[in-house]
Amino acid sequence: MKQFLKRRSFLQKASAVLGAMGISTLFTSNAKAEKPIDGKFVHVVFFWLKDPQNKEAKKTFESGLRSFIEGVDVIKSHHIGTPANTSRPVIDSSYSFCLIVTFDSKKEHDIYQEHSLHKKFIEDLSPLWEKVVVYDSIS
Amino acid sequence: MKQFLKRRSFLQKASAVLGAMGISTLFTSNAKAEKPIDGKFVHVVFFWLKDPQNKEAKKTFESGLRSFIEGVDVIKSHHIGTPANTSRPVIDSSYSFCLIVTFDSKKEHDIYQEHSLHKKFIEDLSPLWEKVVVYDSIS
Repeated sequence: MKQFLKRRSFLQKASAVLGAMGISTLFTSNAKAEKPIDGKFVHVVFFWLKDPQNKEAKKTFESGLRSFIEGVDVIKSHHIGTPANTSRPVIDSSYSFCLIVTFDSKKEHDIYQEHSLHKKFIEDLSPLWEKVVVYDSIS
Repeated sequence: MKQFLKRRSFLQKASAVLGAMGISTLFTSNAKAEKPIDGKFVHVVFFWLKDPQNKEAKKTFESGLRSFIEGVDVIKSHHIGTPANTSRPVIDSSYSFCLIVTFDSKKEHDIYQEHSLHKKFIEDLSPLWEKVVVYDSIS
């Protein structure tokens, strides 16, 4: 909270200084975009690996995922993670990897689906997983 | 792609100009943070409403969710959405609402869980849903 207020106050001052220089629009838009995740179309994927304890398989999967994601320009923002250390009856922590990629719209999502790197990722790494569940959400 | 390059080139120019003014750090960090979702701890929640076709219930739920999310300062970024228009065997589009909130770490997530607005949201709006599934992921 303190850090948040500090940052806010800093941004407000910086914004005022820059505003006086005539470049306020840049900063204003940055401050406003602080909370919503960038990209209205959110593609959430959970992967269950066949051998979730196999460190080599996990490493291969994660590096394949990272390099493919970095190569696709239509992606607005992304998250690659593993189950956090939380536990409640409603929490599903049985998956191996979580991938979230966001896009400006369904159009960019469709380009991603057909992208050669996406197809190559599925071809090369699908032998490692036994289950995939996808949720697509649009705001 | 074109738009991406345009934006990049604009940011590079803006960064150079601001750099000459001695405020380069702000812009450099913004440009680098373009792709990863802000917040390493990602809390993904799917809600299945009891009466998913009830427009009034959906409206009440969504506005309650939005106002609660906006009131919790530890949230780094968020997404509130409904199923996108996609369909493949691996896609689950049966849910009513998707909420994604991100935090800097598990510590902030735990504060969110105990936040009075979160508790009030559950107390007031849980009668509207029949199922909730949560995935917590950390990068």
